[in-house]
Amino acid sequence: MAESAPSTPLLSGVTIIDLSRVLAGPFCTMTLANLGARVIKVEIPGTGDDSRAFGPFANGKSLYFSAINCNKESIALNLKNADDRAIFETLLEKADVLVENYRPGTMEKLGYGWDVLHPRFPHLIYGAASGFGDSGPISQRAAYDMVVQGLGGIMSVTGYPGQPPARVGISIGDIAAGIYLANGITAALYRRAISGEANKIDIAMLDCQIAIMEDAVTAYDKTGEVPGPKGTRHPSIAPFQSFAAQDGNLVIAAGNDHLYRLMTEALERPDLATDARFVSNDLRHLNVDALQAAMETTLRTRSVAAWLDALNAKGVPCAPINDIPHMMQEPQVAARNMIVTVQDPVAGAIKVAGNPIKVVGAAEPASFAPPPELDADRAAILAEFVGAGR
Amino acid sequence: MAESAPSTPLLSGVTIIDLSRVLAGPFCTMTLANLGARVIKVEIPGTGDDSRAFGPFANGKSLYFSAINCNKESIALNLKNADDRAIFETLLEKADVLVENYRPGTMEKLGYGWDVLHPRFPHLIYGAASGFGDSGPISQRAAYDMVVQGLGGIMSVTGYPGQPPARVGISIGDIAAGIYLANGITAALYRRAISGEANKIDIAMLDCQIAIMEDAVTAYDKTGEVPGPKGTRHPSIAPFQSFAAQDGNLVIAAGNDHLYRLMTEALERPDLATDARFVSNDLRHLNVDALQAAMETTLRTRSVAAWLDALNAKGVPCAPINDIPHMMQEPQVAARNMIVTVQDPVAGAIKVAGNPIKVVGAAEPASFAPPPELDADRAAILAEFVGAGR
Repeated sequence: MAESAPSTPLLSGVTIIDLSRVLAGPFCTMTLANLGARVIKVEIPGTGDDSRAFGPFANGKSLYFSAINCNKESIALNLKNADDRAIFETLLEKADVLVENYRPGTMEKLGYGWDVLHPRFPHLIYGAASGFGDSGPISQRAAYDMVVQGLGGIMSVTGYPGQPPARVGISIGDIAAGIYLANGITAALYRRAISGEANKIDIAMLDCQIAIMEDAVTAYDKTGEVPGPKGTRHPSIAPFQSFAAQDGNLVIAAGNDHLYRLMTEALERPDLATDARFVSNDLRHLNVDALQAAMETTLRTRSVAAWLDALNAKGVPCAPINDIPHMMQEPQVAARNMIVTVQDPVAGAIKVAGNPIKVVGAAEPASFAPPPELDADRAAILAEFVGAGR
Repeated sequence: MAESAPSTPLLSGVTIIDLSRVLAGPFCTMTLANLGARVIKVEIPGTGDDSRAFGPFANGKSLYFSAINCNKESIALNLKNADDRAIFETLLEKADVLVENYRPGTMEKLGYGWDVLHPRFPHLIYGAASGFGDSGPISQRAAYDMVVQGLGGIMSVTGYPGQPPARVGISIGDIAAGIYLANGITAALYRRAISGEANKIDIAMLDCQIAIMEDAVTAYDKTGEVPGPKGTRHPSIAPFQSFAAQDGNLVIAAGNDHLYRLMTEALERPDLATDARFVSNDLRHLNVDALQAAMETTLRTRSVAAWLDALNAKGVPCAPINDIPHMMQEPQVAARNMIVTVQDPVAGAIKVAGNPIKVVGAAEPASFAPPPELDADRAAILAEFVGAGR
């Protein structure tokens, strides 16, 4: 990020035809567009991507859609209409990747299953995301984010003991699938560049939930202990959680004995450093209720901001529990270009999340292309792909 | 997944030298190893990857380490020792990618910053993950998962209204960074295959938290409404949450009017289909407390299993809220090979999560190579990279 020599975007020259709607697929193609790929959304005429109807709106434009669809083009095609199918197939001839997130079987019904497409377009990589993937007993079942959050186990470890389960506050079911699909597609692009082979990547939202469960499967299998929700506490490290201060909560993550001692200095509580209940991580973890009570006696006397200053001065990892506006005001977030302002012709100036995959030495784009109106790029796409004669 | 013709793994032939420890970096290289890359962990002599000391253990082997480090080799090298540095540099000569997750500046102090490595090993791709990335005012600060969960906003939308914030029950700060780093590295491998350029990818855990916040930034910026925790409820769709049944909770995700009507049939509550408070999604969302109460009156009369059968029979998206053992028993999880049994020479048979990036037509591996003992592959690596004479 230091220098900003011009550099070719990593996926420059890659063209993606994107049939996907709502979140998992569009999140994937947003990630690929941020890496420099050209993404052409092929949308249903009239309504387009379902998320165009999701509130809230600005001047009638969906902010939900806008958050996920910058840097993309749009053409409306009816894949049950012969003329539109011919256009679609012309796009596929010149494209590198097809992305869709229909239920398994839908593309086959349209005559565009992998068995048809691969022989006809042998260069074309195909990326699919669905709830359960293209195999297994419930492959055909509809899934939403909440369904895979429930099935995959993440809700069972989120929230507080003895209370109802909590949902992860973002659609982690779709988003994890979207990032994994992007990763599978870039790996397939690498393989094709090396050997010429094109593959289909089959991503299941449920599979991705299991993949992100850290050590849960391995630890449960050997110990028989079923992990449950722990509020904000770490399963084995203390103090490593949120605490109540005078005006709110803050995170303190004193991950080892050295950091714990520094923390007792920041809190001006030398007694906590020598208290026999707290002299090792194992003991702190065992006596975490007492530790939290003892720390909060002091923490409640001053503000979150005052404690963050004191802890940071000692080098103790800590954080406010930011809401969205406070997160957006963090100087580090601005310095990393993680909030990008986009000039949208309909909604006006909007803000979206930036690209988290930074290439050292490459200039970050000053802005993104706005989320397209439905069918906005039809004429240009037809002229380029189908030819002036059409 | 239908046929299983032999197929070249996507990252076959790619060699990764992995200096990373604990989670973000090792999760990245696990993802790349699952795609077929060869991963050589370069560990600190004596102790190795810090996570080798994380409990729980089986026969003294860390299950945490084991969950994240299958399919990797290990060599112990002291990068402050001249002989070991010579070996390390020989590895870099023949490798494609270097991965590390030190704090920014650490590699420079070792004499292995990008400015040194890139001219000397111009083919080498460099992937780094840190808390805050290599730029910005707090770049040098230490971060743990909890710190970026606090700063990035995800905790502010997870949990229940009016209650203390909840942590996402997995280390989503590290894991999101690991997947994004894997994606950046595969994109860089593609770029190098096309043009010969090698790049450094700079991933910040905090950046990744912002990238996964869905529409939060865009919606807040335009509406001024600060999103907060909603328990298990969807921000705008109802019914789309967990509900209490006789013996536990279940998820019902009736995302549109059609599914809602089918749900009232599954519950045998035709009154809910015609109740004026519930005839559209907007009204159901507005009256969600009343809707939940009315539904739970019925749901509490039967078991979760009975309701899942009734709802699935009608095609209404629904799910149990699985704990880890119940997740592991789902037939779909087995069918997708998402729990892999690994024969570890020390820990015995262990289970780890499978690879969620499925290549259609490629056979899934029957098992994974076990997580390596520290320095286990020293002799073979030296013989191969340094030569028999050493």
